[in-house]
Amino acid sequence: MADPRPIGVFDSGVGGLSVVAALEAALPAESIVYLGDTARLPYGTKSPQTVERYALSAARALVAEGVKMVVIACNTASAVALDAVRRALAPVPVVGVVEPGAAAAVATGARRVLVLATEGTIRGGAYERAIAHMAPDVEVVGVACPLFVALAEEGWTCGEIPVQIARHYLQAHLSPRPDAIVLGCTHFPLLSGVVAEVAGPAVRLVDSAETTARRISAELHATGLAAARRGSGGLVLLATDGAERFARVGSRFLARPIGARDVRIVNLP
Amino acid sequence: MADPRPIGVFDSGVGGLSVVAALEAALPAESIVYLGDTARLPYGTKSPQTVERYALSAARALVAEGVKMVVIACNTASAVALDAVRRALAPVPVVGVVEPGAAAAVATGARRVLVLATEGTIRGGAYERAIAHMAPDVEVVGVACPLFVALAEEGWTCGEIPVQIARHYLQAHLSPRPDAIVLGCTHFPLLSGVVAEVAGPAVRLVDSAETTARRISAELHATGLAAARRGSGGLVLLATDGAERFARVGSRFLARPIGARDVRIVNLP
Repeated sequence: MADPRPIGVFDSGVGGLSVVAALEAALPAESIVYLGDTARLPYGTKSPQTVERYALSAARALVAEGVKMVVIACNTASAVALDAVRRALAPVPVVGVVEPGAAAAVATGARRVLVLATEGTIRGGAYERAIAHMAPDVEVVGVACPLFVALAEEGWTCGEIPVQIARHYLQAHLSPRPDAIVLGCTHFPLLSGVVAEVAGPAVRLVDSAETTARRISAELHATGLAAARRGSGGLVLLATDGAERFARVGSRFLARPIGARDVRIVNLP
Repeated sequence: MADPRPIGVFDSGVGGLSVVAALEAALPAESIVYLGDTARLPYGTKSPQTVERYALSAARALVAEGVKMVVIACNTASAVALDAVRRALAPVPVVGVVEPGAAAAVATGARRVLVLATEGTIRGGAYERAIAHMAPDVEVVGVACPLFVALAEEGWTCGEIPVQIARHYLQAHLSPRPDAIVLGCTHFPLLSGVVAEVAGPAVRLVDSAETTARRISAELHATGLAAARRGSGGLVLLATDGAERFARVGSRFLARPIGARDVRIVNLP
């Protein structure tokens, strides 16, 4: 049984396009509808109640587009709204990025893990819980890195100032040295170079995009929802605001050019 | 004729509380209702269409609270939505912060002015137009400083990294030296120390909060809308999300403590 319907992916903005890039590489037969809630970004500084409300409306908009599965490609929304979105969308399967990211961290064999994320993700403690569930002996330290979002959005991802900002956030947590650092926000892979420079070569950096893509692949095949062959859909891009900015900043995360005319603006309730 | 109704003030977040502080100092008899649209902040990276929609709903919510005047204490919204809000609210008077800020810059006698602001404010060119209207010979250079918003929100307003970020934004525009620098975002007065350190002591820093308060005072007295004596209203704080964060970050802008229980959460359409 092959299912040609697209996979729906949403994030507060364009960061989740890094998950789309991993999905396209892992599952070239699948079509994808991506929704960036750019009119209400960021989610990372907002309350759990508001993030849940926004996540529900984004997820429902994807279901209205006819998707067969919803991927919450936003760590903050995955951390605070995964259960609510699953309940609201059942029986449509919903995959978040926190659990795959936590699994990837555990798979490195790390005994001490730093999680770099937004204020909202850290406050909720979702990575700590997910890692404790899989590997109770692993020590997990969450570090909110709010300026990283702005740096990544501006494309200011190398040079002395980003390195100093990374050092400011990390230095208190590098002794004893962590074995792995989770880039627990879809924006942060753009800053992996500066994080690696500050943390040193012995620390493994963990990005949830590829692990999430593998999880989606496993779930699609287990449930008979995988597409049989390359469909005509390709990638559809939706945003709630700012097609020009979406295209410009999003190109960095998708790692290929996006045209502003390829982005359809939609309104969410 | 004295009018005891409150003045309504809104911003995308808490930055406009610096205008409230100036208003309280200039007009101690007035009551104020402040609305921070924290569920949808920031405005500075969003499209003019979306900023206008948000500004209209915030302004209408203040009118529904019974205010006698609306102050748009957000440079981005003043820059792109002042006319639309005026048309929608007439005959309720509406005051923005761009024109008072431009007037304050011109009043310094500066021949060359830098305007530091958000991407949205700079893109719209509102300061350039306002200054050109008053003083056509003044040279105006707009500089978008997106990371300043995150620094001010985090309270990271002194030290080597903020100074280096300020230098990064300003250095290309310091020769020839400007006579004045407009802090064209309600968040930026918190960074006046680092801007002054980079620009040097000969450059005047212009903050629109006090000029806006004087403009409001003049307009209230000219229209007979001023309050006669201190009312019972004081300051009412409304936000669309996150009372705890509003209180914590807002205290920095109001320059006195705010309790989370003093912030009423409201929903905007």
